[in-house]
Amino acid sequence: MMSDYVHGYSEREAERLHDQAGTLRELLHHDSAWPPGSLVLEGGTGVGATTAIVAGQNPAVRFVSLDAAADSLRQARRELAAGGVGNVALLRGELLRLPFPAAAFDHVFVCFVLEHLARPAAALAELLRVLRPGGTLTAVEGDHGSCYFHPETLAARAAWDCLIRAQAELGGDSLIGRRLQPLLRTAGLREVSVSPRMVYCDAARPEWQEGFVRRTIIPMVEGVRDHALARGYLDAATWAQGIADLHATGTAPEGTFCYAFFKGTGVK
Amino acid sequence: MMSDYVHGYSEREAERLHDQAGTLRELLHHDSAWPPGSLVLEGGTGVGATTAIVAGQNPAVRFVSLDAAADSLRQARRELAAGGVGNVALLRGELLRLPFPAAAFDHVFVCFVLEHLARPAAALAELLRVLRPGGTLTAVEGDHGSCYFHPETLAARAAWDCLIRAQAELGGDSLIGRRLQPLLRTAGLREVSVSPRMVYCDAARPEWQEGFVRRTIIPMVEGVRDHALARGYLDAATWAQGIADLHATGTAPEGTFCYAFFKGTGVK
Repeated sequence: MMSDYVHGYSEREAERLHDQAGTLRELLHHDSAWPPGSLVLEGGTGVGATTAIVAGQNPAVRFVSLDAAADSLRQARRELAAGGVGNVALLRGELLRLPFPAAAFDHVFVCFVLEHLARPAAALAELLRVLRPGGTLTAVEGDHGSCYFHPETLAARAAWDCLIRAQAELGGDSLIGRRLQPLLRTAGLREVSVSPRMVYCDAARPEWQEGFVRRTIIPMVEGVRDHALARGYLDAATWAQGIADLHATGTAPEGTFCYAFFKGTGVK
Repeated sequence: MMSDYVHGYSEREAERLHDQAGTLRELLHHDSAWPPGSLVLEGGTGVGATTAIVAGQNPAVRFVSLDAAADSLRQARRELAAGGVGNVALLRGELLRLPFPAAAFDHVFVCFVLEHLARPAAALAELLRVLRPGGTLTAVEGDHGSCYFHPETLAARAAWDCLIRAQAELGGDSLIGRRLQPLLRTAGLREVSVSPRMVYCDAARPEWQEGFVRRTIIPMVEGVRDHALARGYLDAATWAQGIADLHATGTAPEGTFCYAFFKGTGVK
């Protein structure tokens, strides 16, 4: 029931995921912390980019990190070994059919996962099944509708919109961030709290223009090029212009770029 | 050269401006502070909603607050008197032809002003003329393209878009927030720093659902109803549905609403 991963599984995508995680580390994960001794399930670990960060900064917490893709898990294993992160057990498995008994975990964590699922509510129900009463679930998601930039050209906007459309066609919802609050509450969580984490890039923040716009956002858009052209979302010339225009939004002195992530927590 | 004020000058609009200013006080103005003894020019004081806040929290600063509309200034005078704010001289005048000699002010402040101007760069040039070298200019602006919500319906989006279109038709640019950085730098300011101030409203923040969505945003949209219907942006039924749907985005348990302001400063 998991939709195809819109960004694919290429080496360039793995590199992009690492750049993304590094750039967003402080913004998204300064408060990704659990009590020492906790057992935390991470659903959808992917190539381990986020896993290395949150496990690395919680050395007294044990993580079980699950993914459906064997190849991603192999990359995650290398990543964790290279970083000297030893408190993670990597495991292959499906989010909708977790290989654990009820209430097996103290806490649950998912990052950039629900947005790729055709049935995020079903995945949340299964994640909550294996969470003990009183434990917390934390979800971090983007919202592609939160994106705007300057200069904003029709071609840049068209290229960006390909991403939203491709993700929807594959069964995901890249606009999920704005509805994280009702999604978590409807799942049965109490004390749901969602905080937006806005990224703003301009000439005064060159490290964000580089790390976020040029190394995270643009490669992400470029990843759906073939899909978008094959389905005729736009023509190749508009695509090329759109990518060039997106580069301008991440380039000083004039470019600016905005995007928001949402981090939600709740108690079972 | 000032464009018509898209939101009009009704009593209800004055009330909306006060609700808006009160709700946004901490988010936008916790750092609106100048050294004691400074002389600050506020351009576009309107009905004094923001003036009362910033002058009230900077009692040792003297403000000269200027507006082109005599009626707004009368309301501002009452507002300041009612609040016991005594450090503001209200003055009628045009932003593009300021009645002051060069370098007359230590600092300049504008809030929700540039977005309503046909020629924001010309206004900035005139504001900078009366600013002393080494003084700062501070500008606070919205960006209507930063707005997204849940549930997001076509009618709600159509009603919202009327606001952007009406403001553009009147010669303003409601998408100015994202280009505040290049605008200030091109004006000749140094050390330009822009910080986004994101508003996020959901069931866990009922005071924001009330103060921002229902008392600031929706009245603002409703203010362009006649303009939008007269010009055929949409039909009356879609309009009514859109307003009802916008109310749902500001109502617990399901609604969420996002918007971003931008605050920029620079040194002459």
